[in-house]
Amino acid sequence: MRRPFDPSLYLVTDTALCRPRPVADVVRAAVAGGVTTVQVRDKTASRRELLALTRAVQAALADRPDVALWVNDAVDVALLAGADGVHLGQDDLPPAEVRALLGPGRLLGFSVSSAAELDVARALPAGTVDLVGIGPVWSTPTKPDAGAALGPDGVGALADTACAGGFTTVAIGGIDADRAGEVAATGVDGVCVVSAICAAADPEEAARALRESIGAAR
Amino acid sequence: MRRPFDPSLYLVTDTALCRPRPVADVVRAAVAGGVTTVQVRDKTASRRELLALTRAVQAALADRPDVALWVNDAVDVALLAGADGVHLGQDDLPPAEVRALLGPGRLLGFSVSSAAELDVARALPAGTVDLVGIGPVWSTPTKPDAGAALGPDGVGALADTACAGGFTTVAIGGIDADRAGEVAATGVDGVCVVSAICAAADPEEAARALRESIGAAR
Repeated sequence: MRRPFDPSLYLVTDTALCRPRPVADVVRAAVAGGVTTVQVRDKTASRRELLALTRAVQAALADRPDVALWVNDAVDVALLAGADGVHLGQDDLPPAEVRALLGPGRLLGFSVSSAAELDVARALPAGTVDLVGIGPVWSTPTKPDAGAALGPDGVGALADTACAGGFTTVAIGGIDADRAGEVAATGVDGVCVVSAICAAADPEEAARALRESIGAAR
Repeated sequence: MRRPFDPSLYLVTDTALCRPRPVADVVRAAVAGGVTTVQVRDKTASRRELLALTRAVQAALADRPDVALWVNDAVDVALLAGADGVHLGQDDLPPAEVRALLGPGRLLGFSVSSAAELDVARALPAGTVDLVGIGPVWSTPTKPDAGAALGPDGVGALADTACAGGFTTVAIGGIDADRAGEVAATGVDGVCVVSAICAAADPEEAARALRESIGAAR
């Protein structure tokens, strides 16, 4: 039995963009402003550093059990920290294998950038993957290795298929407050942001603006 | 209850040095030549690639259950592959936490380059760490971020302390057949090599020469 979570505004952390502020401080402010779900991502951190970072974010969310905490890629770190979920890219460990390690209780997310990649998730046994992250909507400097931009129409088409497969859907890539409404209108369950919050002078205000944009589009 | 293993000649794989040969082919030849223990290490591989590499090496060792298989750093990969052990560096996840993930049955190794780092291992509850890798004996191009060279005398001093603490000891760093005897004479239980086998034109012959050098010194 997996925990319910609200994917409406999904923050993926970027340690470098948060500097000089600690990631946990940015997360705390962002959640105060309306972020509903948080994924700790730091591809340059050692596993030891990532575990410490995850625990710091977890501590910042201690009074917000409604906000699900995901760890990018690092299944071992997620297990040690007791995170709510793991998010996997196409180069990370295969979702079916990770589900076996995680057991039935934790959330599993999976990034898809095409119909073919979504088909991989759809071919897995039910209950393997909970959430698919669809992107990039637009190209983004925070993930230069991401595939070609799908645009809102491309995201909407994948989201329809994913929704029919029973997945929760979020869109990611180049989304800011100006564009969040357009993305929400494609039918995804949530909007993911990195720099729109991590690089914002006021992360709480940035989250609030994103929530307003999403709310207005629905 | 942990499996017994023979640390005498411990091969750490390097994918780049093995090229164009598959790592698994080099491992198979090295074991035929006398390697007793194998650690899969590839710091540049994705976790998905590392899992595939580990399974390929495991398949190459299918008829050699006496040869323990370790995975460097990646606890999740070790668990998924069912490897015999995990080897951790100082920047990897903390040994006590990894032991909790691994359960009591798997082997755990830990790299130390100084008395202070060895003290960290000694301060852990008994049964947390099984093996300490002491090094670098000499500086080595395969691990440019390793600390200052300890030399055989420095290795011997750490090995004595580690042995008294109940750890199996291996030495690593710049060891080739010419130097393996000198290292074995320091009192370590085993000698680790990377390039002496992975970069050898004939890995089987290289392993045999190393074993002879170690045997002559004992």
